[in-house]
Amino acid sequence: MTDLPATDVRPRGRRSGAILTALALITGAAPAAAETFRTDDYTVDVSTVASGLEHPWSLAFLPDGTMLVTERPGRLRLVVDRTLVDAPVSGVPDVYASGQGGLLDVVPAPDFADSNLIFLSYAERGDGGAGTAVARARLVREGMSARLEDVEVIFRQQPKTTTSRHFGSRLVFAPDGMLFVTLGERGQRPLAQDLSTHNGKVVRIVPDGSVPDDNPFVGTAGARPEIWSYGHRNPQGAALNPETGELWTVAHGARGGDEVNIPKAGRNYGWPVISYGRHYSGQKIGVGTHKEGMEQPVYYWDPSIAPSGAAFYDGDLFPEWKGDLFVGALKFQLLSRLDVEDGRVASEERMFEGAFGRIRDVRSGPDGAIWLLTDEANGQLLRVAPAE
Amino acid sequence: MTDLPATDVRPRGRRSGAILTALALITGAAPAAAETFRTDDYTVDVSTVASGLEHPWSLAFLPDGTMLVTERPGRLRLVVDRTLVDAPVSGVPDVYASGQGGLLDVVPAPDFADSNLIFLSYAERGDGGAGTAVARARLVREGMSARLEDVEVIFRQQPKTTTSRHFGSRLVFAPDGMLFVTLGERGQRPLAQDLSTHNGKVVRIVPDGSVPDDNPFVGTAGARPEIWSYGHRNPQGAALNPETGELWTVAHGARGGDEVNIPKAGRNYGWPVISYGRHYSGQKIGVGTHKEGMEQPVYYWDPSIAPSGAAFYDGDLFPEWKGDLFVGALKFQLLSRLDVEDGRVASEERMFEGAFGRIRDVRSGPDGAIWLLTDEANGQLLRVAPAE
Repeated sequence: MTDLPATDVRPRGRRSGAILTALALITGAAPAAAETFRTDDYTVDVSTVASGLEHPWSLAFLPDGTMLVTERPGRLRLVVDRTLVDAPVSGVPDVYASGQGGLLDVVPAPDFADSNLIFLSYAERGDGGAGTAVARARLVREGMSARLEDVEVIFRQQPKTTTSRHFGSRLVFAPDGMLFVTLGERGQRPLAQDLSTHNGKVVRIVPDGSVPDDNPFVGTAGARPEIWSYGHRNPQGAALNPETGELWTVAHGARGGDEVNIPKAGRNYGWPVISYGRHYSGQKIGVGTHKEGMEQPVYYWDPSIAPSGAAFYDGDLFPEWKGDLFVGALKFQLLSRLDVEDGRVASEERMFEGAFGRIRDVRSGPDGAIWLLTDEANGQLLRVAPAE
Repeated sequence: MTDLPATDVRPRGRRSGAILTALALITGAAPAAAETFRTDDYTVDVSTVASGLEHPWSLAFLPDGTMLVTERPGRLRLVVDRTLVDAPVSGVPDVYASGQGGLLDVVPAPDFADSNLIFLSYAERGDGGAGTAVARARLVREGMSARLEDVEVIFRQQPKTTTSRHFGSRLVFAPDGMLFVTLGERGQRPLAQDLSTHNGKVVRIVPDGSVPDDNPFVGTAGARPEIWSYGHRNPQGAALNPETGELWTVAHGARGGDEVNIPKAGRNYGWPVISYGRHYSGQKIGVGTHKEGMEQPVYYWDPSIAPSGAAFYDGDLFPEWKGDLFVGALKFQLLSRLDVEDGRVASEERMFEGAFGRIRDVRSGPDGAIWLLTDEANGQLLRVAPAE
């Protein structure tokens, strides 16, 4: 595409995109610019599969290889045969696109091949301000276009609050079919310890929105029954550890307190009572780093890298990286590889520092490559594969 | 001292040093140049307490605050009231000062206040080449000078080999009074797995050189009874974890395989069968990173930082760092702080990168400061304290 002459007079707007997309589909995927990097274990090529995404936030793979990409302003996009489809998916719920809010995570149902259901998390307006919500919908495709049908909101963070920060939010299906949703404290720090709210919690719901009977606070007076764990600040990354089946979360801390946690039923992860960080004012947080009854992180970053999306690598192109947790960083503009051994982090490698801008999300693709999204006005979809 | 005019005609040689030292003792410690650094938790001043040390390797504190410093070519020096005494301690055993060999570690006996015993590790020549040895001796002080008496070699690595690399060696007293000695494989990789040699082992001896009855290979035919653990490459750092009483070691790996281990009785730490590194040729090592019956490191560095001395911080000047493991790095010229939580590394901070050259040793001082030695021809003794 970049080879087109500047005097090209193709019609603007959606139609031109559709034509170009069709052309690309006919002639094969558009040639991607690749940049080569040495990492500790491999020399890798990073190629740009798509650009022009507006603050993309999450990507997901469907069983046929199609990718879904959310853009924070509220669009859901398809990437077919490594080509970005110009027309967004229609029928996406209205989102509150302000500050850190907007359209956030997307995951297909484990039985997507049969059900065509996908799940979206997003910030929505409502009484009292805004909050995170989760919707499920049926993805209906017709040629290159697609729409959502039967959209149903299955979860709403309570209460809504007036800030535009710390929404979370990632969606992870557990092996038992339950859905985890990570929720920020919306800038209302003390609420992370308050079980009567969803702020700063990981919740666990049945994919129809009902509450599983075996949630830890079912039957506890004053506690919201969806809560799985609490004391979180703003978990913008989450992934299922394929080896253990456990949920791992990655959260933004205050200055110097970004954390990796393994949220367990009913446990308290300490925010804002304990933290490895400080407030951005430099003021100390809570009582320090430890407190009886509060869990320690598996790993933390000080100084903060501003971690967002996370994924365990489970492909075959990089055997040495199998089981490692990859985390994208916004402020530090890098990809962190945590070598996970026996449930602990044995080493950290940082790659691509400053090369691509803010890295919002990372996924282990069915093709064995590592896929990244950059959080920029002209955001990119990148593919990391062994150098040719 | 640096203020002396260039035309100063003071006599050269040892005597001038003694005069200057005496002057310093009279007028108080020489003013130290301090450089200020921001770390994650503190702003610190790093001051040069002594310079002109020739490849210093280890430092130790005596109960009265006097410091002992080894220089690899074979000298043992005193630092009294933060002033380097010019005259080396006499009576030090002859060392094999070549390549990585020379005078290495120094530790006082736990009962030094009564016994005046110190322990030295060093490379020595002998039948077949060179190897690591451990001597104990009585330190006799007379004014500013000191000598070793009753020098007795209590351990000799067997067999001696012809290379001049991978001697180890650190000495650590366990809480039960036993002495751990870390030993490199002398460049003879397969011997690290061979229990009939001391190469690539941690040994455990009674401080008189005899073998403790409860060592793991006592009574095992063909195994040297001093062996505590095996499969080590070149452990040049070791420290007692004050919280658990366990020995922790830090070893140079091949390219990308520097390790932190907690050597336990009779266990195999895998070199050269498993490693996170590669040979410097780029060739793969052994069978990979894991093998049944071989232990995983607590932490590793890839790429290698070339770690040497290590110490757990147990002072009061930096409360946030209590219990953290500090490791000096040669190639990367930095001080690594590993935040140790529940026996695992929860985070790493790197400080002073490139500022002082190769950092050979680190100690937690009785004054609460962190003390460093730089491995240079003009090596320095540095003190890290909170900025004033």
